[in-house]
Amino acid sequence: MNIIKPKKYPTLYYCPGHLSFAPHVVLNELGKPFELARLSIKAGDTQRESFRKLNPKGKVPVLITENEILTESSAILLYLALSHPESGLLPPTPVGAARAIEWLNWLSCMLTGVIALNFHPSRFTDEVESFNGIKARGRLEVIKVFEQINHRLAENQWALKEGYSIVDPVVLIYFRWGTLLELDMNQFSHWAAHTQRMLQRPAVQKALATEEIVIGN
Amino acid sequence: MNIIKPKKYPTLYYCPGHLSFAPHVVLNELGKPFELARLSIKAGDTQRESFRKLNPKGKVPVLITENEILTESSAILLYLALSHPESGLLPPTPVGAARAIEWLNWLSCMLTGVIALNFHPSRFTDEVESFNGIKARGRLEVIKVFEQINHRLAENQWALKEGYSIVDPVVLIYFRWGTLLELDMNQFSHWAAHTQRMLQRPAVQKALATEEIVIGN
Repeated sequence: MNIIKPKKYPTLYYCPGHLSFAPHVVLNELGKPFELARLSIKAGDTQRESFRKLNPKGKVPVLITENEILTESSAILLYLALSHPESGLLPPTPVGAARAIEWLNWLSCMLTGVIALNFHPSRFTDEVESFNGIKARGRLEVIKVFEQINHRLAENQWALKEGYSIVDPVVLIYFRWGTLLELDMNQFSHWAAHTQRMLQRPAVQKALATEEIVIGN
Repeated sequence: MNIIKPKKYPTLYYCPGHLSFAPHVVLNELGKPFELARLSIKAGDTQRESFRKLNPKGKVPVLITENEILTESSAILLYLALSHPESGLLPPTPVGAARAIEWLNWLSCMLTGVIALNFHPSRFTDEVESFNGIKARGRLEVIKVFEQINHRLAENQWALKEGYSIVDPVVLIYFRWGTLLELDMNQFSHWAAHTQRMLQRPAVQKALATEEIVIGN
């Protein structure tokens, strides 16, 4: 696609099934007009110069508002919640906001770390003969962190005890990646139940349909 | 050390020269009473069961308040700024807070990714013969991301255009890691100037003295 100046604000640049799914769900939850711009990582869209002008890091999501270009899913999610306090998508206390960022920061680092070891060993070395060892480590580590996610979802219906928030759509997309890694995701029973609750939400259903992806075992 | 229930709140668990340095500086900036608990990663303190009860992830920083145990540097920094709005350490607008988290999330992922490739190749594979290839990639990538940090520091005195914030102490500790990697950090001229400005701050000087570390080429 040509990456052009958006016609409407906000515009979310996304790739189907990627972390951009989370702000996509949140934009649906807010129920205000927004635009989507679909990119294909496989086709190289995120590496084109036109896109790198928006985000030199060459990654989705990117959110364009009338005055700002925001990158990093955690930042975009925080921005959407703070600029729509009526949505209740972020607890209105310092500790509540910190708990959200505690989840989001941890999950972000897991994506570029443990999960990338599984999907993208070539990000960690030039040496093709090292890829299997990197993937093997990734496989071990991903189960450990997924157990931690599951454990943290044991106590409440949603990721934060205060209720549904910007964290939950992020937790949901990580479930999808577990499925893509052919893990038996039902072993993570609290997380699987969380996923079922998420799939009941119209905002999630709409985002799945738009991105043409499926979540669930 | 024995990891015991803190006697005072808040208590910050830290390891000298690690990412916990940033909330340490911010606690100094706030000027309110707090306690420090020093751990040694080398001595295995962060992997002991007593510490893992505080943070199952086995990492510093951990901040203990009267009611909460907070992990993840980004979350602790956000909590400190939001619970002390008078400190001015976070811009009071949705986009300002999002810009802070944009920086912090990006830097966190860099630490567990690109920087760990250099310092801890054993986190990515069991195969010792792959370590040099992982380090070599890390060396290439770290220069690219450090150039991006430098570029982003070109326009303003501090990381955020609104002024000094919770982001700046994080930027400072990454400078130290560049020095430890024996990079010529003066090639990143805007960042080196930022470091000099940081080193003028009493809160930074005090944290450096307490942690018994040095920053600068």
